[in-house]
Amino acid sequence: MTEKIESSIENLWQDVRELSLGSPPHVDQLPAPPTPLQFLRRYVAANKPCLISAAVPDWPALSLWPSTDYLRSALATTPVSLHLTPTGRADALAPHPSVPSSLSFASSHVETLSFPEALDSVLASDNEGKKVAYLQQQNDCFRREYGALGADCEEHVPWATAALGCAPEAVNLWIGNRFSETSFHKDHYENLYVVITGEKKFLLLPPTDFHRMYIREYPAAKYVYHQDSGEFSLELEDPTSNVPWCSVDPYPSPKDKRREMEKFPLYFNGPKPFEVSVKAGEMLYLPSMWFHHVRQSLDDTGLTIAINYWYDMQFDIKYAYFNFLQSIPRTDPSRRRLRNDKARLGLSLCSSGDESDIEVSHDTRGAGDDGNN
Amino acid sequence: MTEKIESSIENLWQDVRELSLGSPPHVDQLPAPPTPLQFLRRYVAANKPCLISAAVPDWPALSLWPSTDYLRSALATTPVSLHLTPTGRADALAPHPSVPSSLSFASSHVETLSFPEALDSVLASDNEGKKVAYLQQQNDCFRREYGALGADCEEHVPWATAALGCAPEAVNLWIGNRFSETSFHKDHYENLYVVITGEKKFLLLPPTDFHRMYIREYPAAKYVYHQDSGEFSLELEDPTSNVPWCSVDPYPSPKDKRREMEKFPLYFNGPKPFEVSVKAGEMLYLPSMWFHHVRQSLDDTGLTIAINYWYDMQFDIKYAYFNFLQSIPRTDPSRRRLRNDKARLGLSLCSSGDESDIEVSHDTRGAGDDGNN
Repeated sequence: MTEKIESSIENLWQDVRELSLGSPPHVDQLPAPPTPLQFLRRYVAANKPCLISAAVPDWPALSLWPSTDYLRSALATTPVSLHLTPTGRADALAPHPSVPSSLSFASSHVETLSFPEALDSVLASDNEGKKVAYLQQQNDCFRREYGALGADCEEHVPWATAALGCAPEAVNLWIGNRFSETSFHKDHYENLYVVITGEKKFLLLPPTDFHRMYIREYPAAKYVYHQDSGEFSLELEDPTSNVPWCSVDPYPSPKDKRREMEKFPLYFNGPKPFEVSVKAGEMLYLPSMWFHHVRQSLDDTGLTIAINYWYDMQFDIKYAYFNFLQSIPRTDPSRRRLRNDKARLGLSLCSSGDESDIEVSHDTRGAGDDGNN
Repeated sequence: MTEKIESSIENLWQDVRELSLGSPPHVDQLPAPPTPLQFLRRYVAANKPCLISAAVPDWPALSLWPSTDYLRSALATTPVSLHLTPTGRADALAPHPSVPSSLSFASSHVETLSFPEALDSVLASDNEGKKVAYLQQQNDCFRREYGALGADCEEHVPWATAALGCAPEAVNLWIGNRFSETSFHKDHYENLYVVITGEKKFLLLPPTDFHRMYIREYPAAKYVYHQDSGEFSLELEDPTSNVPWCSVDPYPSPKDKRREMEKFPLYFNGPKPFEVSVKAGEMLYLPSMWFHHVRQSLDDTGLTIAINYWYDMQFDIKYAYFNFLQSIPRTDPSRRRLRNDKARLGLSLCSSGDESDIEVSHDTRGAGDDGNN
């Protein structure tokens, strides 16, 4: 039974690619925005991403925001939320504060500063120097904190609003550089992601690939930045809580690579994630529940500025199927072989840390793992 | 593992109802047609049925077709396809021609007659008299055989064509009465079903309920009507082939009821199917892959005339999930208990006919089980 289920899950990964994502599987590139009906029919209903080239040709932001002088002047006294980490990885796994062999889920230190000061901090970021700043806040911050820039963009994406039948639930602004990275996660939103300056590099996996992400519970922790020493500490949340999060780092360091590939074979040996590069003026439709990992502007030290629109998703039969999929435990082949070998050798199989990758986490609607991008 | 999977499957049945089908779960009733965007967003994308009340107020058919004189005159010399069975059940399970304890999949005897003769045959139908006639042919027959009635309806459903982005693949006409019944099956089409006279009574189950239909392979057979004796024989197709078909009869005769409920507990003990009655002038949106069973005008002997539009469905992530679901074997609880009891008693468990309900059939895209309604 177990092997049958496992091969069914692997077939599902292939099936969604062959049926829905073209031959060879790819992310559609559109020269201009689709009509509301095209967008709904071809992409939202099918839960399928697309990249739109000349997505927002009329936005003043495209010509204005590359100038930091413009931004400093427009937001001269505006208080904004700045996220600080020692590594550039907020909402990501980091060594556990008190059990170094284990991992925690680390959120950033958040400060409120005037925009010009905050921007200086982003521009001074350097993960060698152990302090990376990222201007962002996923609480509708574009409309809450950056109202002074409102006229430079549209309040919503008109064809998406018409298709989805509602205004965006949140509009967020992101100002960072190549030192910030967002770990694999999914959002319970339909996401339209516009890059204004710089470039974002997404890795995308469909929700059908749930088991390849090795979602596990990690204790929640938070970076605290100590102004006096210029150093960070990582502290467990009080009261303690657990966060279900993807375990896979798609870009492990050379020294960790082999170990990571052995720990997460379903990811590293399965179908490759879709790589999508979103450049200034382009828009990515990132469908609800797709797993995504994000890096930005790897080739220079300039800013990457982006804005994203979160629209409510429909909790329909697709979501019910996703819940069903994630309720099914999936061992990975290496572990199964291990158990079979132990059984053949007459060894008892005790629960150990090595077996932890057979755990799966149950998601609840709208909860928890909406992430950092 | 097995029990875990089985409870996951049962949760899926509940989940799709709670998430997508309202509280209590029901089929939406709309007073008038939705806009293309509403239809696509709320129903097609969500794979969710709806019933539309004043669906086709301007169709001349509504006033013209209740008159058989009008139909006889419009189609005075038109050859049409007439389906004959002894029971009113075409494309349904019937005792196997040579192994009476077993079942076959029986198609109707098809004749080509002039419309007036064919209509007489429908009106003379009587399952007591062992001959039931049904005017239908699922090959785009409305446009192929009934072109003379074309001006009485629309060639397509304009808001559905706009939403789905294509013209109908087939338009079919159905003229029958209460003696004809359509067994549970699903279609690989988006289906818009308009009743012109009489009433159709649908039972609907979402595709998530796959295991409750006990789909198994049955040898294909065909009724042959012998004009001389006025009797039917049922003959295996030559060359032989198997048809995957739903095993459940939702209305078993009183004498068979207990046995049927024991054979198909997942159907009879699970969530009730949605009952939808479609009356003259109403339209049912029957989403792709939904299982449906159809009866008509139970309360009089008048004709039920309907027309349906089959639009191509999208083979997207929903279909990939469906394929995944149907690839998972599901034993039913009574069988599992039986096996557990036998194991406890130290009895060996040999394969027997009684265990056959753990078989599932694998579907292929677009193949096979498109049915009789």
